Amino acid sequence: MRHHGTTMLAAALALACAGLCTAMPARATDAPDATALRETANTLFGAIPHSVDEVRGQEITAAQVELGKSLWFEPRLSRSHVLSCNSCHNIATGGADNVPTSIGHGWQKGPRNSPTVLNAVLNVAQFWDGRAADLKEQAKGPVQASVEMNNTPGRVEATLRSMPAYVEAFARAFPGEDQPVSFENMARALEAFETTLVTPDSRFDRFLAGKGSLDATELRGLSLFIDKGCVACHSGPNFGGQAYYPFGVVERPGADVLPSGDKGRFAVTQTASDEYVFRAAPLRNVALTAPYFHSGQVWDLGQAVAIMGSAQLGHELDATEVQSITRFLQTLTGRQPQVANPVLPPSTSTTPRPE
Amino acid sequence: MRHHGTTMLAAALALACAGLCTAMPARATDAPDATALRETANTLFGAIPHSVDEVRGQEITAAQVELGKSLWFEPRLSRSHVLSCNSCHNIATGGADNVPTSIGHGWQKGPRNSPTVLNAVLNVAQFWDGRAADLKEQAKGPVQASVEMNNTPGRVEATLRSMPAYVEAFARAFPGEDQPVSFENMARALEAFETTLVTPDSRFDRFLAGKGSLDATELRGLSLFIDKGCVACHSGPNFGGQAYYPFGVVERPGADVLPSGDKGRFAVTQTASDEYVFRAAPLRNVALTAPYFHSGQVWDLGQAVAIMGSAQLGHELDATEVQSITRFLQTLTGRQPQVANPVLPPSTSTTPRPE
Repeated sequence: MRHHGTTMLAAALALACAGLCTAMPARATDAPDATALRETANTLFGAIPHSVDEVRGQEITAAQVELGKSLWFEPRLSRSHVLSCNSCHNIATGGADNVPTSIGHGWQKGPRNSPTVLNAVLNVAQFWDGRAADLKEQAKGPVQASVEMNNTPGRVEATLRSMPAYVEAFARAFPGEDQPVSFENMARALEAFETTLVTPDSRFDRFLAGKGSLDATELRGLSLFIDKGCVACHSGPNFGGQAYYPFGVVERPGADVLPSGDKGRFAVTQTASDEYVFRAAPLRNVALTAPYFHSGQVWDLGQAVAIMGSAQLGHELDATEVQSITRFLQTLTGRQPQVANPVLPPSTSTTPRPE
Repeated sequence: MRHHGTTMLAAALALACAGLCTAMPARATDAPDATALRETANTLFGAIPHSVDEVRGQEITAAQVELGKSLWFEPRLSRSHVLSCNSCHNIATGGADNVPTSIGHGWQKGPRNSPTVLNAVLNVAQFWDGRAADLKEQAKGPVQASVEMNNTPGRVEATLRSMPAYVEAFARAFPGEDQPVSFENMARALEAFETTLVTPDSRFDRFLAGKGSLDATELRGLSLFIDKGCVACHSGPNFGGQAYYPFGVVERPGADVLPSGDKGRFAVTQTASDEYVFRAAPLRNVALTAPYFHSGQVWDLGQAVAIMGSAQLGHELDATEVQSITRFLQTLTGRQPQVANPVLPPSTSTTPRPE
C-alpha cells in the first residue's frame, strides 16, 4: 500500500483544522484550553499501546522474545563478530546510535541516519524509504548489507546451528518446525523482541489519558503542532511513521540537509513523484535521537523544527513557536525499555570465525 | 611489586608436588581420590569471592556501581560515539570480544587479545603486561588509546559535564568533592562497577565447597593440572593473573602464536629478562573466551592446553591428558553477571559531537 503525500497532507490538514477551533487561545501567549486540546489530541494521535501481542496476526511467544533478545545483542550475526543490532539501534540511547550515519563493517559509513527501534513496530513499514514491509523483513537487511554487518544468510545459519543453546532456543521459539534454525526465523525472533520495545507513559500520554498535565508552553507547542500542520504527516500513536512525503514539499532544504544523491523512496518505486520522498519520521522519543533527518545533519531539535516549518509547511516559525513546539516534543519521551543483558552461548569448533 | 617468573615457578611447583602425593591415582585411567583432591585444590586455588566490597581499602558504594554501569555501556566515552567498554569486554560473551585482537577507532586492530573483565578485580595488575596497577588505572588506557576509543580526558570530562544526569550521578557517587565529574572519577566508577563482575558458583567452586562433584575425567584433569605443573602459574582463586612469566619458558612457540614484535612486559620494565614475559592468563571462564593467548591466534582450548604443555612445562601432553585438562577447565565457567542495560542520558547542545 502506498499513500501519496499531497493527498494525505490535505486530508490531515483538514482534520487538524477541524480539531483546532476549540483549542486555540485568543492570543499567542495565552495557554490553550487543555481540555479541548486533550480531546483533539486523542483524535489525532491516540494512546501508545503498552505492549504488542501479535505480528501479522500471529501471537508472539515468550520463547520468541527471549531468543530475539539474545539475537539482538549477538555480535556473531556480523561477519566481524563485532557488530550487533544494538550497535546501531542502541536501547540505552533512545534505540539509535545518535551519529549522523551508522558505522558498519570496516568502519564504512552507512548512507542514512539510523532510525530508532523504539516503537518501530507501530510504523507502517520500515527503513526511511519503507522498503521493508515489517520488522521481520527489515531485520534481514542490515545483517546482509556490506556496509553494515556484511554477513550472509548461510553463514548466519551455520553460526547459529553451531551452538547447541541456540538450536534449543530456536526449537522452543518455533516448535514443530523441521528446521527451526533459519535466517527467516532469526528475523521472526528479532521482530518478536522488537515488539517489546514500546515506550508508554510519556508525559504526553499521561496528559492524553487525563492523568497528567502539560505546562502552558507545552500546551502551546501541541496547539502549534496541530495548527501549523505538523500533524499532517506526524499523526497517529507514533507521531509519524505512517506514510511517505516529499522532503521539501514547499521549499527544498540545502544539500547539506537533503543530499542530492539520495532520492529516497524513488529507489524503491522508480516513480518520478517519489523523488526525495521519505517516510515521515516517527517523533516518539525524538528528544533522545539527535542528529535528525535521514541525513543526520541537524543536531538541534529546535533547528529541525524550524527546517520542517519552512520546508514542509511554508511557515517561517518564530523563535517562540519553535521553542514551544520543541518543548512539546520533549514530552513524547516515554518510559525506556528495561532490558537485561543476555548471556550468550560460547562459540564451538564449528562456529564460523570472524572475518 | 614485581614477581620474577622463575622463582615463583619453582615455589609453586614445589607446592603443587606437595599436594599431589595423596591425590594421584595409581593408573592414568583411575579416578583420582576426590576428597584428597578437593583438599589440595582448596589450598592451591581457594574459593572465588561472591562479591568484592572494597578497592584500595575504600568501600564501594551503590552510587559508584550504578554510575560505573552507565559509563561501562557509554559509547560517548569514545571519540566516535560508537565504542564503549562493553564493545571489547562484552559481558554477554564472557567479558571479552572473542576476536583475535579488538577492533577500535577507524576499524584499527589492537595489538593484543582483549582480556576478560570478569573477575579482573582479582588480578594482581591489569593488561597482559601488568602495566596498570589496578582497574582504575586500566580504565584510563583504552579511552585514550588511538587504536581503541581515541579520546582525551578533557573531551571525556566535557562530554560528561554536558549532561545534567551525569553531573548528578557523579555528585552522588563522589559526595563532598569540589569537582566530582572528572576523568579520575570516571575511572573510579568503572572500577567500582567492574568489581561486581565476579562469577562464583562454577561447578569447580561447588566441588571445592563440597557441594558438588566433578566426573572422573574432570577430576583427572584437575589432578593433571596440578601434577603437570600448570598450577605453577595458574593458581589462586582466579587461576592465574597473579604474576608474570616468560611465554615459552621451556620451548618458545612459533611466531604465529608468539609474534616476535610483541616483547610483553619488557615494554614496561625495559629489563632484558622480561622479554616475552606476560601475566599468566586467569583461567576462570576460559571456555567462553576463545581465541587464546595475547596474540589471540589459537581458537581451540585443547590446542591451547597442548601448547602450554610444551612451551611452559616441556611436556608433550597426550590426547587423553589434553582432553581431561580441557574438560576440567570447562568446570571453571561460573555464574555470569546479570546486568540490566542502563538508560543513558541524552546529549545536549554542549556535548562534543562524534568525530
